[in-house]
Amino acid sequence: MSQGKSFSHGKRFDLAALKARLEGIRTEDNPALLRQKSRDFYWYSPTLKRQLDGVVADIVASPVGEEEVLRVLAACFELGIPVTPRGAGTGNYGQAMPLAGGLVLDLSRLDRVLEIAPGRAGAQAGALLADIDAACAPSGQELRLHPSTYRTASIGGFIAGGSGGVGSITWGGLRDLGNILSLRIATMEATPRIFTLSGEEVQKVAHAYGTNGILLEVEMPLAPAYTWIEAIVGFTDFLDAAAYAQALGEQDALLKKLVSVIAAPVPQTAFLRHRRFLPDGMHAVLVMLAPMGCAAFESFTARHGGAMLFRSDLLPPQETKGLPPLYELAWNHTTLRALRVEPSITYLQTLYPHPDPLARLARIHSLLGDELPAHLEFVRFDGRITCFGLPLVRYISDERLDAIVALHEECGIPVFNPHRYTLEEGGMKQTDPAQLAFKRQADPQGLLNPGKMIAWENPAFDFATGRTYLFPGLDSRNAGEAG
Amino acid sequence: MSQGKSFSHGKRFDLAALKARLEGIRTEDNPALLRQKSRDFYWYSPTLKRQLDGVVADIVASPVGEEEVLRVLAACFELGIPVTPRGAGTGNYGQAMPLAGGLVLDLSRLDRVLEIAPGRAGAQAGALLADIDAACAPSGQELRLHPSTYRTASIGGFIAGGSGGVGSITWGGLRDLGNILSLRIATMEATPRIFTLSGEEVQKVAHAYGTNGILLEVEMPLAPAYTWIEAIVGFTDFLDAAAYAQALGEQDALLKKLVSVIAAPVPQTAFLRHRRFLPDGMHAVLVMLAPMGCAAFESFTARHGGAMLFRSDLLPPQETKGLPPLYELAWNHTTLRALRVEPSITYLQTLYPHPDPLARLARIHSLLGDELPAHLEFVRFDGRITCFGLPLVRYISDERLDAIVALHEECGIPVFNPHRYTLEEGGMKQTDPAQLAFKRQADPQGLLNPGKMIAWENPAFDFATGRTYLFPGLDSRNAGEAG
Repeated sequence: MSQGKSFSHGKRFDLAALKARLEGIRTEDNPALLRQKSRDFYWYSPTLKRQLDGVVADIVASPVGEEEVLRVLAACFELGIPVTPRGAGTGNYGQAMPLAGGLVLDLSRLDRVLEIAPGRAGAQAGALLADIDAACAPSGQELRLHPSTYRTASIGGFIAGGSGGVGSITWGGLRDLGNILSLRIATMEATPRIFTLSGEEVQKVAHAYGTNGILLEVEMPLAPAYTWIEAIVGFTDFLDAAAYAQALGEQDALLKKLVSVIAAPVPQTAFLRHRRFLPDGMHAVLVMLAPMGCAAFESFTARHGGAMLFRSDLLPPQETKGLPPLYELAWNHTTLRALRVEPSITYLQTLYPHPDPLARLARIHSLLGDELPAHLEFVRFDGRITCFGLPLVRYISDERLDAIVALHEECGIPVFNPHRYTLEEGGMKQTDPAQLAFKRQADPQGLLNPGKMIAWENPAFDFATGRTYLFPGLDSRNAGEAG
Repeated sequence: MSQGKSFSHGKRFDLAALKARLEGIRTEDNPALLRQKSRDFYWYSPTLKRQLDGVVADIVASPVGEEEVLRVLAACFELGIPVTPRGAGTGNYGQAMPLAGGLVLDLSRLDRVLEIAPGRAGAQAGALLADIDAACAPSGQELRLHPSTYRTASIGGFIAGGSGGVGSITWGGLRDLGNILSLRIATMEATPRIFTLSGEEVQKVAHAYGTNGILLEVEMPLAPAYTWIEAIVGFTDFLDAAAYAQALGEQDALLKKLVSVIAAPVPQTAFLRHRRFLPDGMHAVLVMLAPMGCAAFESFTARHGGAMLFRSDLLPPQETKGLPPLYELAWNHTTLRALRVEPSITYLQTLYPHPDPLARLARIHSLLGDELPAHLEFVRFDGRITCFGLPLVRYISDERLDAIVALHEECGIPVFNPHRYTLEEGGMKQTDPAQLAFKRQADPQGLLNPGKMIAWENPAFDFATGRTYLFPGLDSRNAGEAG
């Protein structure tokens, strides 16, 4: 069914030949390390946990520079060995998990920050977000966007497997034109070629899980860096909290980096180190605000009846010592913290579209509020403020999860399913023709991160059936392991 | 009718006593200078030109510092002499014109930049916008917002008499909480008091034309400074140009400072120095863009079928030499340039509200397109992108102007009448209770800029009648001059 000649499922790869070709490049095949470098935070999802638990690479290569990356690609191409690129492994859809085995291409040693200029920074794909920001700090700049895994995630992994996060309340998402300036990528061919994509061309390979090119270098826009004020605002009514967050988002003159709403009792049970600031019953709005807006923010919050529960700039240092940064209570760190306390918790990812996102929210909250403690992340989306939902779910069964998804869709709330490992099923449930076309050029043998792009693996797959795609290579590997 | 004891209309003020009290402070009563310092760009409006042409102060004082300002205020209070503050006189509603005569308080010598910090700058009220930015430049920062009179306007005048402009596509307007950080003002009393207002308190005196306090110092938020790319994009269809501008506004990741649309043939007839870039029949979209977004901007523009007519960064220096900055083709400079070519031109100020501003625009453009060449300024407004209209009007009569206003209102397009000298009539056509209450405190005798706040002068005035307010003091002065 595959569009190019694919590797054979279940086949044993010629690792000896590969190692010979990779002489001088760091490789690992120690089983514990293979296992570790073959996984991400997929276990947030009980479905993915079940499906992907056996996934393991045959070998990990950790090249130090572009030339070594090209050698790895050429060798794997020659030997028909699948290559799954990996940044820091902080995704949670199995983005960097080698479904068909083969080689995991660990890019963490391509970590140099290459250039910092007004409004832009260039870095190698494996550079950590926090390290890029540290390098930008002397110029008073920082990255516009980062996931809650800021301190551990790589820029290449964020671009290949992420969509936005902290900063999206001001700048939108990575999908927005201008949030990725250019990408330097290598193809998977006998002699890998290098392309530099800019403008809308970047969308061919961004958020493609490395299925159609290996990110070598990236150029990202920068925003001014501030000592962001962290605030937690409390409301006794959840919908008041959501309305406040929406209105705060719409305050064009208040520069924000984060506006999150987390329904009680999650803040109280999951935000352990902030617990003393969080009275029982209070729904929490997390805000990161540029400091010049403080007085206006206070006026605005008072006008909305919000209780100022926490302000990082007003507490003495001994009171804030040991607290995680506020963004580590938000986005998928909310899920992580809730999971740690209650292991049966999982989550969904939803979007509250206009018109009237708050009415949709009120409806679904009245239907499911107790079963799905609400977690909203406000963002700019197509020029407007709206929110994503990352509700926590007390997982009962796949059937119940499907029913919850269906209920959302009946309320006009699309669900991006975080319990799927393919690009399409976790996203818009349709083929991305630009990404597919680029894969034909850049990975004619289908060796890059196999199993993640349904359009490549099974062009006849019909999303309308609602059936979950199962990558045959994954079945045969799991079967092989079981046998 | 006035709320406090007011000065007597037509009364001769005791200028000799005033001069004695102001010894050591620079004053002027040379008639040519009095006339010059008593006007602004009110003559954009044929209505205001007729009403205000005779307005002239009795004396101008130009204090050098706060202490001198307080001495002027105390002396005028004691002698019952009206005080009309003036920045650089670049308004065009007669904001700084002394309708009742008396003293014009020229604040242009309070021009010091006081402090520059990350995200904020403090300055005296008379500092010019361009001078503040020059002082901010070493820190890589600049003011968020400025009018098209950037090179000549003062920050105090902008706050007291302006509403937004260049930068509003990203930051909204001065009315938005957080676009003015704090204001230090003096009251008009026997012993003037000083207040510092911050948060939402600033709205008590911002955009009040100096009727309820004298601005001494201001603190404004800063944005990162860039070498903004200037672009002109051409469309053969006007509504395509407007749709492109709206969509460009909604591109959250493209950092913009200006998005203006000017219907043909105005660009061709009025933008003389840019004429060679503007083919006949092309409607022009003026864009100021942060440079890192260039490639994305090009992709976006190509996708919309826009013709890139001008790009400041791609022309050799000899081609751009002598061109005015792009913002001097926009906002009220568009009107100014059109007026210079065709003196019968005046303009209106309108707002295209959601939902569906472009449908409203299409309707009014089909009704009035030829008589009112369209000029749109896109802005962020309550968290969304929309546009103000500053259409040019080939003035025929006040009756026809009224009919044009009525036609807009029938199409759901509110008109902010630029042919009125009062706060209320040029704005929301209603009393601002916070500004009125503050005037009671700060100007109990009604001596500050008399005639501009209807709520003070005539609390019984009924806006619903649609009648134009006429300040009695103005009548008596004009009568006095005629007689």
